[in-house]
Amino acid sequence: MKAYKDMTREEMLAEQEALTLKFEEMKGKKLKLDMSRGKPSKAQLELSNEMMDVLDSGSYFLDETGTDCRNYGVLNGIPEAKRLMGAMSEVDPDDMIIYGNSSLNIMYDTISRSYTHGVCGSTPWCKLDSVKFLCPVPGYDRHFRITEHFGIEMINIPMTENGPDMDLVEHYVNSDPAVKGIWCVPKYSNPQGYTYSEETVKRFAALTPAAEDFRIYWDNAYSIHHLYDEPEKQDYLLEILSECRKAGHPDMVYKFISTSKVTFPGSGLAALAASKRNLEDIEKQLTVQTIGHDKLNQLRHVRFFGNMANMHAHMSRHAEIMRPKFEIVEEIFRKELSGLEIGTWTEPRGGYFLSFDTIPGCAKAVVAKCAEAGVKLTPAGATYPYGKDPEDTNIRIAPSFPTLSELRKAAEVFVVSVKLVSISQYLNR
Amino acid sequence: MKAYKDMTREEMLAEQEALTLKFEEMKGKKLKLDMSRGKPSKAQLELSNEMMDVLDSGSYFLDETGTDCRNYGVLNGIPEAKRLMGAMSEVDPDDMIIYGNSSLNIMYDTISRSYTHGVCGSTPWCKLDSVKFLCPVPGYDRHFRITEHFGIEMINIPMTENGPDMDLVEHYVNSDPAVKGIWCVPKYSNPQGYTYSEETVKRFAALTPAAEDFRIYWDNAYSIHHLYDEPEKQDYLLEILSECRKAGHPDMVYKFISTSKVTFPGSGLAALAASKRNLEDIEKQLTVQTIGHDKLNQLRHVRFFGNMANMHAHMSRHAEIMRPKFEIVEEIFRKELSGLEIGTWTEPRGGYFLSFDTIPGCAKAVVAKCAEAGVKLTPAGATYPYGKDPEDTNIRIAPSFPTLSELRKAAEVFVVSVKLVSISQYLNR
Repeated sequence: MKAYKDMTREEMLAEQEALTLKFEEMKGKKLKLDMSRGKPSKAQLELSNEMMDVLDSGSYFLDETGTDCRNYGVLNGIPEAKRLMGAMSEVDPDDMIIYGNSSLNIMYDTISRSYTHGVCGSTPWCKLDSVKFLCPVPGYDRHFRITEHFGIEMINIPMTENGPDMDLVEHYVNSDPAVKGIWCVPKYSNPQGYTYSEETVKRFAALTPAAEDFRIYWDNAYSIHHLYDEPEKQDYLLEILSECRKAGHPDMVYKFISTSKVTFPGSGLAALAASKRNLEDIEKQLTVQTIGHDKLNQLRHVRFFGNMANMHAHMSRHAEIMRPKFEIVEEIFRKELSGLEIGTWTEPRGGYFLSFDTIPGCAKAVVAKCAEAGVKLTPAGATYPYGKDPEDTNIRIAPSFPTLSELRKAAEVFVVSVKLVSISQYLNR
Repeated sequence: MKAYKDMTREEMLAEQEALTLKFEEMKGKKLKLDMSRGKPSKAQLELSNEMMDVLDSGSYFLDETGTDCRNYGVLNGIPEAKRLMGAMSEVDPDDMIIYGNSSLNIMYDTISRSYTHGVCGSTPWCKLDSVKFLCPVPGYDRHFRITEHFGIEMINIPMTENGPDMDLVEHYVNSDPAVKGIWCVPKYSNPQGYTYSEETVKRFAALTPAAEDFRIYWDNAYSIHHLYDEPEKQDYLLEILSECRKAGHPDMVYKFISTSKVTFPGSGLAALAASKRNLEDIEKQLTVQTIGHDKLNQLRHVRFFGNMANMHAHMSRHAEIMRPKFEIVEEIFRKELSGLEIGTWTEPRGGYFLSFDTIPGCAKAVVAKCAEAGVKLTPAGATYPYGKDPEDTNIRIAPSFPTLSELRKAAEVFVVSVKLVSISQYLNR
C-alpha cells in the first residue's frame, strides 16, 4: 500500500470519494456499537454465574476463625479472603485490606484521606499550596479525574513500551517535594497494554522522593488478565511491594487490585496492599468510616474459587473470549492500515485495551466520525489529564464488550474513519 | 424499697457486704457476655437466610430497565431498589441514591466531601477556621467519631423525650454560621430510644440557618424497627424531607437509612435521601469516586422482599426476638432498682438500645465493675462527644446480641454493679 502522505492530490481525492461511498453505506446500517469502556461482555459474565450458587440459605456462614460473616465486624477482611486476594496480588495476606466492590473507590478514598489527614502524619494536602501528581500518558481517565477533582496539578510523563519515562519520573520525584504521587497501571497498561520492565520497576523502588508522603499508586488492575495461556506469551511484572522493601522504601507504594474483571464488575472484591505502617495509618481512618465491608461477598468469592489455581483457570476462560476480539481488531487494522502511515497501534498480550495513534490532529475527528456511523469510542483526549491530548492523536480501543461480529463491523467503521479523517487532514494542509 | 441515699451508714455497709458476696458468686461463674454493640443476634440473622436463595446461576440478572446487574454501571441505584428503599424511607424513589453496605460510610463520605469540596458550591470546610456540629446527647458514638476525626468542634445539646432541646438548636443554628450540621437519630434514638415529636420535627424544618451549608444529618437507622406490632405501641415520626420542603428549606436535610438491621449487617443496602439540588451536588463527586455500587445485592434485596409490606412483616419477626430481650432487662431493672433512687432508665418501643443513668460520677465505675464479672458494656462516656460524659452518668445498654438467658445473667450483674458502685459513692462522700 502506498502511504497517504506520498499520494498525489488526485489520488487522495479518488480515495476520499471511494471511502465516502463506503462510509455512507456503513452509516446506512444504523449500527449501535460501543467500544468506549472496558466492560466485560455477557459471555464473560456468564463465566461467574455459579458464584451465585455457593451461598444459599443452608450455607455455613462462618469464616475460618468462627466469625459470622452475616453480622457486623472485621474491618480489614476475613482471613481466607485476604489469602486469596494476597495470592492474586502476590503479597502476604497480612499486607492487605479487603474493601468493598471497587478499587477506584479505594483510590479515591486514599487521595481523599491524604488530602484531609495527610499520609502517616504528614501535613494534610489541603493545607499545602501545591500538590502535584505524575501521570504517565496515555493513561486511565478515571485516575486523572480523581486528582483533578482534588485540584492536584497533573504532569504528563510519556509512556514507553517499558513503562513511564523513568528519567523524567526520577527527576520530578527526587527533586520536587510537591510531587506526592504517580498513577501507574503497571501491567497490560490502560490503554496501551504495556507492562513495566524489570528495570522500570527497580527504578521505581529505588526512587528517593523529595516528599516523605510521596506514594506510588500501583493500580494492578490487569495482573492476571492475560490473553494467552502460554507462559511465553504472557507479560511478567516484578512485584513492587517486595522490590520497595528490598530497596529500603517499604512505605513508598500503595497497590490496588480487584476482581471486577474476574467475577462481576460492581459485585467483586477490591483490595489494597501496602506496608504495615501504611496499613496502620489507613485503618485509623477506615475504622471511623465503616464498621466493615461485605463479608458474605468475600466468603462467596473464596468458596467459588477455592484457590489461586482455580482463579487462573477462570481467567483462562476469560482469555478464550477476549483473545479473538483483540485478534480481529488487530487483523483488520493490519489489513486495512498497514503501509498507509496514518496510524500506529499496540498489540497487547493482556488487559482490556489497545491504543491507537493517528497522525497529529486527527483523534477527535476520528472519534466523531465513528460516532456518526454508530460506533461509540472513548472520547479522544480522555487518556490525558484534563482531557487534553496535546497532539490529538490517541484513541483508546476497548474490544471487550461487543460480540465478534459487532467488533468486525466496528473495526471496519474505525479504519474507514481513520482513512477519511487522515485524507482530509492532508488535503487541508 | 428504701432509697440508698436515705440509708444509714450501717445499713449501707450491710447492703454492701451482701452485694459483695453476691457479686463474687457471679464473678465465679466466669461469664462472657456482650451488651456493648447494637449487633443483631444469630436468631435474627437466620430470618434473612433465604435472601441467599433468591439469586442463583440460573437467575435473570437484568433490572427492570434491562440493565445487567452483573456488569458496570448505574451510579445511583437500580430503579426497583430505589423504590423499595424509598418506601422504607417514606420518600420519592427519585430523591434517593442507593450506596453500598454501610450508611455510616455514606455519612463519613458526606462529611468528607463537605470538608474537601463544600456543600452545593459553598467554601470547603477545610478552608474555614471554625466548623461546628451540634450533638444531641447522649447520642451515637460513631457519629461523634466522624466529626471528631475531621477536627469539627462538637457542641452538646441535651436530649429530651421529644428530641433535642430545640431552643438551644435554634439558638446555635440560626445565629452561628460556623454551625454546619447536627447529628440526629430521630426515631428510637441511640441510646435512649426516644422519637422526635411532631413539634420537634416541624421546628427542625423551620430552622433558618446562619450557614447556607448547614444540613441536618438525619440518621433514620431505626425507622421500621418497632418492638410491638400494635400501631398504638409504635412511635411515629414526621417525614423530614417533606416537612423541610413545606417549610421552604428543601435542601436542609440529608436522610440516611440502611437495611443493616433488617437483613444482614455488613451485607445490606444503605441509601441517602435528599433534595434534587443536594443529590446533583453529591453525584458530581460520586461519579469520580466509583463506577457504581453492588447492583446484585440491590437485586437480591428487591427480590427477597418484593414490597414494603413484606419488609414490615419481616421486621415483625425481628420484633418477636427483640421484644422479650428489652422486656427482661426492664423487668430486672424494675424489680431490683425501683425505689432505690440510684438509677433511671428508658423503656423504648423500638430500636436497639436502652439508656441507663446512674447517680453522678458512677457510670465508668459500673461499666468497669460489670467487666470484672465478664459483662461487656459500651464504654461509659461513649454516648458523648470526645467520650466525655460531663456527669459520668450515662450507660448504653444493647440487649440484642445475647440470648434471653444470657441477658438475664448480664442484667443481674448490671444491677448488682450499679448497687455496689452507688453505695461506694455514697460511703465515700
